[in-house]
Amino acid sequence: MRNRRSIRKYKKQPIPIEEVLQVLEAGRLAPSGANQQPWTYILVTDSKLKQEIRKEAEMVEKSFHCKAPESLKNWFKKQGITPQKSFLTEAPALIVVAGNTKFPYWLESTWISIAYILLQAESQGFGTLTYTPSDTRFLNKLLKTPKDYQPVAIIPIGYPAEKPSPKERPRKPLETIVHRNTYGSTN
Amino acid sequence: MRNRRSIRKYKKQPIPIEEVLQVLEAGRLAPSGANQQPWTYILVTDSKLKQEIRKEAEMVEKSFHCKAPESLKNWFKKQGITPQKSFLTEAPALIVVAGNTKFPYWLESTWISIAYILLQAESQGFGTLTYTPSDTRFLNKLLKTPKDYQPVAIIPIGYPAEKPSPKERPRKPLETIVHRNTYGSTN
Repeated sequence: MRNRRSIRKYKKQPIPIEEVLQVLEAGRLAPSGANQQPWTYILVTDSKLKQEIRKEAEMVEKSFHCKAPESLKNWFKKQGITPQKSFLTEAPALIVVAGNTKFPYWLESTWISIAYILLQAESQGFGTLTYTPSDTRFLNKLLKTPKDYQPVAIIPIGYPAEKPSPKERPRKPLETIVHRNTYGSTN
Repeated sequence: MRNRRSIRKYKKQPIPIEEVLQVLEAGRLAPSGANQQPWTYILVTDSKLKQEIRKEAEMVEKSFHCKAPESLKNWFKKQGITPQKSFLTEAPALIVVAGNTKFPYWLESTWISIAYILLQAESQGFGTLTYTPSDTRFLNKLLKTPKDYQPVAIIPIGYPAEKPSPKERPRKPLETIVHRNTYGSTN
């Protein structure tokens, strides 16, 4: 937990499918609302499909950035967020996580499952990132996902080609996010 | 990940505050949309406050169950879900997790943070559960949470007084939730 940082640059080196399945096994074990396990994982390793996903994702992001109000545009600039998503073709595999919207707390449960995946990948030495396109309908089409399943994130996975320092992405101090009994109280 | 199961029965024995803070430290380290860390934790140990939370939560659930359509009522019965929430007073501490709705992907990020908390608690030998009341506004009032922060879960934490078997809450087999390149495909 302490060492994991999101990775945006990946080595092209493929990773063994057995090891990716071991990562997904962790996601499988997550708790969920009424144990309904609303998640499904589509593991994309096909190069042509990755290229199509990248093309569609970049189109969606360009349109989103274009239509964004000035304040949001400035915020994107400050955060270094651009419509370019090179990790979608550079990572050897993409885990597309979708959730079945018919289940109670499907979104919450699916994100717990994603956290399990991120931590397991870290423990196996892989880099990951969670990327949610601003519109995910193109994924249903490209991956032939049934309409009940809403894609919520693309997780590229691979050997990291960068090593972000925790200092670059600091977390807020614990005392500023913990309150005692009521908000703002320290005892 | 493999051993953790949600715990609904707790020993009344209090747990040292330092150990709960260690659990929350894990939540602090979670990744988030644009590193905005939208989560905040209100640690409730005051008995009177826990009683008030339980009373309000049970009122909210009774009303929810009452208004539910027959199909949902049957589903609740099948799942063993009742409006009674005894863990809210029996657990020595409640972690109320709220997210700042002004941040992008605030709900998704906050649930990753919750997953980190659940796993860290497990590794320290504590039982936990994620409970989301069907209406959470009473928590804003009781805990004096600012209106930008939406409570998303109450996590009771304590020493487990039950040991649910993994067999009671089985997970779907991996091969039924993993697809290759397109939904429904195995290669």
